[in-house]
Amino acid sequence: MPARPPGGGTRLDPWFGAYAARTHGLKVSETRALFAVASRPEVVSLAGGMPFLDALPIDIIAKVTAELLATQGTVALQYGNGQGHPRLREQITEVMAAESVHAHPDDVVVTTGSQQALDLVTRVFVDPGDVVLAESPSYVGALSVFKSYQAWVEHVPMDADGLVPAALSEAIERAKRAGRRIKFLYTVPSFHNPAGVTQPLERRAQVLDICKNAGILVVEDNPYGMLAFDGTVTPAIRSLDEDGVVYLGSFSKTFAPGYRTGWAVAPHAVREKLVLASEASILCPSQASQLSIAAYLENCDWLAQIDVYRLVYQERCAAMLAALAEYMPECSWTVPRGGFYTWVSVPDGINTKTMLPRATTALVAYVSGTAFYADGQGSGQMRLSFCYPTPERIREGVRRLGGVLAQEIELVNLFGPQGGRNAEDVQNPAPDLA
Amino acid sequence: MPARPPGGGTRLDPWFGAYAARTHGLKVSETRALFAVASRPEVVSLAGGMPFLDALPIDIIAKVTAELLATQGTVALQYGNGQGHPRLREQITEVMAAESVHAHPDDVVVTTGSQQALDLVTRVFVDPGDVVLAESPSYVGALSVFKSYQAWVEHVPMDADGLVPAALSEAIERAKRAGRRIKFLYTVPSFHNPAGVTQPLERRAQVLDICKNAGILVVEDNPYGMLAFDGTVTPAIRSLDEDGVVYLGSFSKTFAPGYRTGWAVAPHAVREKLVLASEASILCPSQASQLSIAAYLENCDWLAQIDVYRLVYQERCAAMLAALAEYMPECSWTVPRGGFYTWVSVPDGINTKTMLPRATTALVAYVSGTAFYADGQGSGQMRLSFCYPTPERIREGVRRLGGVLAQEIELVNLFGPQGGRNAEDVQNPAPDLA
Repeated sequence: MPARPPGGGTRLDPWFGAYAARTHGLKVSETRALFAVASRPEVVSLAGGMPFLDALPIDIIAKVTAELLATQGTVALQYGNGQGHPRLREQITEVMAAESVHAHPDDVVVTTGSQQALDLVTRVFVDPGDVVLAESPSYVGALSVFKSYQAWVEHVPMDADGLVPAALSEAIERAKRAGRRIKFLYTVPSFHNPAGVTQPLERRAQVLDICKNAGILVVEDNPYGMLAFDGTVTPAIRSLDEDGVVYLGSFSKTFAPGYRTGWAVAPHAVREKLVLASEASILCPSQASQLSIAAYLENCDWLAQIDVYRLVYQERCAAMLAALAEYMPECSWTVPRGGFYTWVSVPDGINTKTMLPRATTALVAYVSGTAFYADGQGSGQMRLSFCYPTPERIREGVRRLGGVLAQEIELVNLFGPQGGRNAEDVQNPAPDLA
Repeated sequence: MPARPPGGGTRLDPWFGAYAARTHGLKVSETRALFAVASRPEVVSLAGGMPFLDALPIDIIAKVTAELLATQGTVALQYGNGQGHPRLREQITEVMAAESVHAHPDDVVVTTGSQQALDLVTRVFVDPGDVVLAESPSYVGALSVFKSYQAWVEHVPMDADGLVPAALSEAIERAKRAGRRIKFLYTVPSFHNPAGVTQPLERRAQVLDICKNAGILVVEDNPYGMLAFDGTVTPAIRSLDEDGVVYLGSFSKTFAPGYRTGWAVAPHAVREKLVLASEASILCPSQASQLSIAAYLENCDWLAQIDVYRLVYQERCAAMLAALAEYMPECSWTVPRGGFYTWVSVPDGINTKTMLPRATTALVAYVSGTAFYADGQGSGQMRLSFCYPTPERIREGVRRLGGVLAQEIELVNLFGPQGGRNAEDVQNPAPDLA
C-alpha cells in the first residue's frame, strides 16, 4: 500500500491503494462543508451564489414546459446529439450577440452547466504539472477543476480594473523561464467571482494581446456579464478575437441553474475536441433541459427578465455596501457594478477562515478568502454574496458579521494575530517536467 | 511541435501542440458518424439504442411536470447538492430493490446519465496505462471513457451465459504476470450491450468471487436489467456484495434518456470520491431533471410502464429473430431474453465495417462489431438493435440487410475476403509501467 498522500483518503478504505493519482488531491471543499450550515433558515447566508429565482415568472415557465412536453415530448425525452440541440445553439448565438460576441452555432458546444465546459477545456488541454494562469483570487469551482487534472495554478494579481496586464506578462515570463508549459489563462472579466471587479474594454484588449503574443489560449468565463446594474454591457474578450479564446457561457445566472445548461464557444478544431470529450463523459446534454430553455427563450421576454434580475441585485448590492459602511468600517471592499459578489479585506491579524465557525454560531455565513486561492493566500479576505437574501436580511447579516468581527479584533488586540497562510490548502508542488 | 500522433488532430489547428496527451486519442466514433445517416427517415436504423418513447404516457408526464414547476419551481430550477436530491436517492433505492439490490440513499450518487457515473469511476481509479477488464465485445461508450483516461482495455471472452469465469481468471493472471495494475472489471451482466446475453446468478457469483480474491473492483453496469421479456429479473451482482461492487443504474431505458439521469451506488469511501469528482466536473446534477423523475416515479405506475416496454421489445426482438432466420440464414446470432440488442456473426470473409456504407446505400444501418473492441476485433460481427423501429420496419430492415449481405458473399466468393482486423481502431500499446 502506498504512503498516505496529504488530504487523500484513509487506510480504512479498502480501495485506497487503487485510486488514480488525481484522486488523492480531491477533498471536501470549504464551500460544500459550509452550505449544510448556511442553508439553515435562521442563518443569513452571504455565502452562496444562488440566483434569486422568486424573480422568475414560474407560472409561465410551467405552462411553456407543459406545452413543450405535450407537443414534443418524445423528442424532449429522447437522446440528443453530443454537441447540443441545433435550435438552442442558434439561440445561444443570439444571446451572446448581446455581449458583442458573434459566433456560428457550429462552434457552440452545449454542456451540463458551464462547469462542465470548464472541465472539458481542462481535460482537453491539461497534462499533470501544466500551468494554468488564473486571477488572484479565482473562482473556487475552477480551482477544483484545475486541481482534479493536476494542473499548477499560477495566480496573477488584480486591481480595481481586474487582471493587471504587467503582472500577467511577468507571470508568463516567470513560468517560461522555469521551463513550464502554460496551457491557458482562465479569466472572469465581468463582475468577477469572487472579487466583484470588471475589466474595462482596453484592459481586455491588452490581456488578449499579451496572451496571443505568448501563444497562450484565453478561457473567458462569463456567467455574469449581462448583470450590469446600469445595463452597460462591456464587450466580451471573445468579441475581440475568434481564434485565441474559448468562451464559456451559462443560463444559470441570467435564467436559472436548475437545468444545468451552459456552453462553450471555441475555435473550430478545439470545439471538435470538446464535443468528443463531452460525448465520452456524458454522451449528450439533457434534451429536456435544452428544449425547456429553448421554449423559455422563445416564449418569454428573456431580456426583460435579465432587467428584473439586474435591478434586484443592484438594490441588494446597495444594501450590502451601506451595511458594510455602517457595521464593518474597519474593513475595505470592492464596489461591484454588477454580478453577485463583493470582496472584503479584513484588518491585519484577522483570519477569515478561523473566524468562520464563530460567524456561523452568530447565524451569518460567508466564504473565507482561502477558498479562492490554490496557494494558501486569502485568510485576510472573504467573499460576501448579495444575490439571494433580501436587502433587510443582508443588512441583518452584515450587522451580525460586524459583531463577530469586533470580537475578533478585540481578541487580536489582546492576544495577537490568528495565523496567516493556511498550509493545508496549498497545492502540492508540481512534478518536474522532464 | 510534437510529431502527429495517430488519429489526433491536424497541423492546421493552431492549438494542436497544446493538447493534453489524453486528447490525441480522441476521435469521432463509428457510431456518431453513422447516426447522421441513420437518422434519415428512409433508412431503417438497426443501429441506435434509442428507447421507444411513444410507449410513454406523455400527457400525464406533461401534467405532472407542470405541477412540479408550478408548486416547487424555485426549488426545481435552483442549484442542488453534488450527490443528488435526497428524495430521488431514496426512490432510486426503491427502484433497485426490484433487482434485489439493497442500498442506503447515502451511498447513491446521482449523475448526468450513467455515462457520467462511468466517467467518474474511471476518473477516480484509472491512471494512464492501468488495465480495465471488459467483456469481449464491450459497450462502445465505455470504451470511449476508458480510452479518454488512457486505460488499457483487456477483453475477456463471453459465451451464451456472458463473461467466462475461467477466461477472467486467465486474463487476471496474465496481466499480473506482466506486472500491470488492474483497476476494475467493467461488466454488463444483464442483456449485454452489444452481445445480448445474460449472466445467470451462479455465473455472477463466480465472477464476483474471482474478482474479490484478486482484489479487483467490479463495476456493474445495469441499464437493461428490468427489461427481461418474461419479467424474470436476475439479481444484480451488487445484490451479492456491497464492498466490492460499484453499481451503475439509469433511467434512460426504463423511463426516458432525455433527463440524462443515472446513478452510481458505491462502497462508502468510493462514493465520497465520486461525489467530489462530480462536483468538480458539473457542480451538481440537474435539479429539474431529478425532481421531474421523482414526480414521475411518485405519480405514475413506473413498474407498469416497464411492463409496457418489456412487451414492446419482446415483440420487436421476435420480429428481428424471425427476419434473421428468413433473410440472413448464413449468419448466426445471439437470442436475447431482454434488452435492446442481438449480436450477429457474419460468414467468414465478410467485413461488417467495409460493408456498412453499402448497407446505408441500401437504406439500412447497423453498428459494425469493430466499435465494441479496443483491440481491432469485430469485423466479423455486427450489433442489431430492435428497440426503436416497429416490427414491420425491423423486418424490412433485415430484408434489406440480407440483400446487401448476399451481394457481399458473392463478392467474397469471386474476389476473396475483404480484410480482417482493422488496424486503425487498435488502442495504442500502453506505456511501460516502471
